[in-house]
Amino acid sequence: MSMIERFGHGGDVWTAADTFGVSSEAFLDFSANINPLGPPPVVAERLQQALEGIVHYPDPGHRKMKAALSARLQVPQERIGIGNGAAECMALLLLAFQPRVVGVIAPCFSEYETLSRQFGADVVTVVGQEEAGFQATEEQLYQLMLETDLVFIGHPNNPTGIVYDRERLERAARMAEKTNTLLAVDEAFIDFLPQEEKVSLLPVQHQYKQLIIIRSLTKFYAIPGLRLGYAVAHPELIAAMSAKQVTWSVNGLALAAGEALLTDKHYDDYVRATRELIVTERTWLRERLASLGIKTWPSEANFLLCRAPALWTAKRLQEELGRRGILIRNCDMYTGLKAGDFRIAIKNRTLNEHLAVSVQAVLH
Amino acid sequence: MSMIERFGHGGDVWTAADTFGVSSEAFLDFSANINPLGPPPVVAERLQQALEGIVHYPDPGHRKMKAALSARLQVPQERIGIGNGAAECMALLLLAFQPRVVGVIAPCFSEYETLSRQFGADVVTVVGQEEAGFQATEEQLYQLMLETDLVFIGHPNNPTGIVYDRERLERAARMAEKTNTLLAVDEAFIDFLPQEEKVSLLPVQHQYKQLIIIRSLTKFYAIPGLRLGYAVAHPELIAAMSAKQVTWSVNGLALAAGEALLTDKHYDDYVRATRELIVTERTWLRERLASLGIKTWPSEANFLLCRAPALWTAKRLQEELGRRGILIRNCDMYTGLKAGDFRIAIKNRTLNEHLAVSVQAVLH
Repeated sequence: MSMIERFGHGGDVWTAADTFGVSSEAFLDFSANINPLGPPPVVAERLQQALEGIVHYPDPGHRKMKAALSARLQVPQERIGIGNGAAECMALLLLAFQPRVVGVIAPCFSEYETLSRQFGADVVTVVGQEEAGFQATEEQLYQLMLETDLVFIGHPNNPTGIVYDRERLERAARMAEKTNTLLAVDEAFIDFLPQEEKVSLLPVQHQYKQLIIIRSLTKFYAIPGLRLGYAVAHPELIAAMSAKQVTWSVNGLALAAGEALLTDKHYDDYVRATRELIVTERTWLRERLASLGIKTWPSEANFLLCRAPALWTAKRLQEELGRRGILIRNCDMYTGLKAGDFRIAIKNRTLNEHLAVSVQAVLH
Repeated sequence: MSMIERFGHGGDVWTAADTFGVSSEAFLDFSANINPLGPPPVVAERLQQALEGIVHYPDPGHRKMKAALSARLQVPQERIGIGNGAAECMALLLLAFQPRVVGVIAPCFSEYETLSRQFGADVVTVVGQEEAGFQATEEQLYQLMLETDLVFIGHPNNPTGIVYDRERLERAARMAEKTNTLLAVDEAFIDFLPQEEKVSLLPVQHQYKQLIIIRSLTKFYAIPGLRLGYAVAHPELIAAMSAKQVTWSVNGLALAAGEALLTDKHYDDYVRATRELIVTERTWLRERLASLGIKTWPSEANFLLCRAPALWTAKRLQEELGRRGILIRNCDMYTGLKAGDFRIAIKNRTLNEHLAVSVQAVLH
C-alpha cells in the first residue's frame, strides 16, 4: 500500500500534508468523492442552532431523523436503520449476521474486505471483467453467492463508477433468496445519478428479504466529517443490526444536519444542481483527460477511474501532483487494477481545469 | 423498565417530552450527569471554525487528538485509543477480547451488561454491600475475577458516586494479572474529583498489563452530543481494540472540540471551577434533601444516589417532577437498588434550589 493511503482510503489530507509538506487545508482534494457544491446552506444554519444542543445526549432512537428519512424515501420507519456513517451500517451487518465467508467483486471499496476480516469473516474475491467496466458476470455472481454468506456490491461501484442494469441486480436479489445469501447493495453514491430512481433497488426493496441497501448522507451532502448513513432492509434485518449498535453511536450534530437537509425546502434544487454539474463536468473531464492520453471508464458517479499513459505509474503521478498541492487517489493496491490506475473526484470547472492543467504539466 | 428509560439511560429528553407533554428543550434535566458549567468557551469557538471542515473526512488516525491527550495525561500515544464516546471504547474491548463471561458489581452503569450481552458474553453480577456504598468486598472481587474473563468497575461508580481506595484497586489490578482477567476501570466521571490524581489508576496504569482505563470527555466538558471518549492501556491492548474500530468512527467535530479543550489555556481554571462547584453544591444538596426525608449516599462525583421517603416510589416522584418539567433518573431497575431509589445530577445553585423546592412541593 502506498504512503498516502496508509489508512486504506482517499481524503486523508493529514497524511498527505506530512508527506508533501503542504498544509492539510491547502490541498485540492480529488481523492475523496464529495459533492463539489458543498453542504446545502441549511446544514450550516441548522448546525449553528444545534451547537447549543451538544450538552445533551443524542436521541438513541434517532426518531426525528428516521421520520424525515421515511417521509423522503417513502419507506416505513421499521425498514430504516441510522448509522454512524455508511461504514457503521456495514459493520452492524457483519456483527449481526456473522457471515463466515463474504464475497466481493474487485475492484471495489476496500472496507468491504477490511470490515469483513475485522469481524472474523473470510473473503472470497472475484475480479470483474475489465472490458465490462469491471462488472461481474451473472455466472460469477451466482458462483459467489453459492460460496458465501454475504455479498457486497457497490452500486455505482467505487472506484469504477459503473452501475448494473436493474433487472440484472434484481435477478441477483432473487439468487440471494435461493442461495440464502445476504446481498448488501452499497448505494453510497447513487444520489449523484440523474436516473437514480431507475437504477436504485430502493423502490423494489420490500420484495427481497435478503437484500440490504446501504446509503450515505456524507458524500452527496458533503458532510463526511459528521458521519451519517443508513440501511434499508426487511424490519427483521434492521432490528438485528440495531441490536448490535452501541448506544448514542450517531452523534447529535449529524442527526441535526440530517433532519435539516432532508426537510429542506430547497432539497430538489440542490439535488438537481448537483446532478447537472456532475454530468456536465464528468463529460468535460473525460474528454480533457483523453486528450492527455489518460483512459477513463464510463462512470455514472461523481468520480472517474483513470489509467495513466504508458510508462507512468499512479504513484508517481500522485507524488508529482501532491507536490503541487493536488491529491488524487492512487488505485494500484486495488485487486484487479494496475500500477497506472488512479481515481479522481469530479469537482467544479475551475478546479477540474486546474487539475487537467496540472496533469498536463506533470506529464509533458 | 419504566417508561422514561426505554433506552436504558437518563438524559432522554425526547421520550420524556412525549411522556409528559413538556417540550424537550424546556426540561431541567437532572437525569444526565453533565457538567453544569457547560462546555468551556473554547469549544464553541473551535466548533465555529471547524464547521467548514465537515466537508472533509475525519482523521482516521485521530493524530492531533491523541497528541493533545498524550501531552495532557503524560501517557505515551501508543497507550491511548480514541473512541466515539466511552461506550465505543467498552464495545471495542468486548469485540477485541471476546470475553465469554463478564463480571459487574451492581448497581452500576447499565451499559456494562447491555454491551456485554450485545457482543455475546454472559454476565455475572455481584451485588455490592449497601452499607459500604454498594462497593464489592475484596473477597467478592476476587471471586468475580475467578469466574469471569473481564470485570467492569465504575470509578467513581454510577449511580452511587462512590470511589474505591486506590490501594484496594491496585490489589484488584494485581488479582487481575494472577487470574488472567481483564480489568476495565471506567473513570468517566473521575475528572469531577478534586483528588483525582490520588484516586485514578492512571498514574500507575503502566504497571498493570490487564488493566484498561476508560474515560469520557463528554460528561466533564458537557459535550455528550458530540461523542468522545478514550481508553488507556498497554499498547498491545490498545492495538487490539483499534483493530476492531470502524474507520472514521470518531467524527471530525468531536476531534476538533477535544483538541481545543485539551490545549485550552484556561484548562486549569475550568477544571478547578467545576470541581469547586460540584463539592459545594453536592454538600448543600445532600443537606437540603436530608431535610426533606431523602437519604443520599456519600458520592464523590457530580451526581447523587437518593432514596425517596417511605411510601414514595422513584417512579411516582419522577412522574410528579416530570409534569413540572424536571427530569430525574429513576433507578428502580438497577440490580441491588429499591423502588424508592433515584439519581440526580448536581447543577448550579439556582437549579439545585429549584429542584429542592419542587421535590418539597411534590412530597408535602
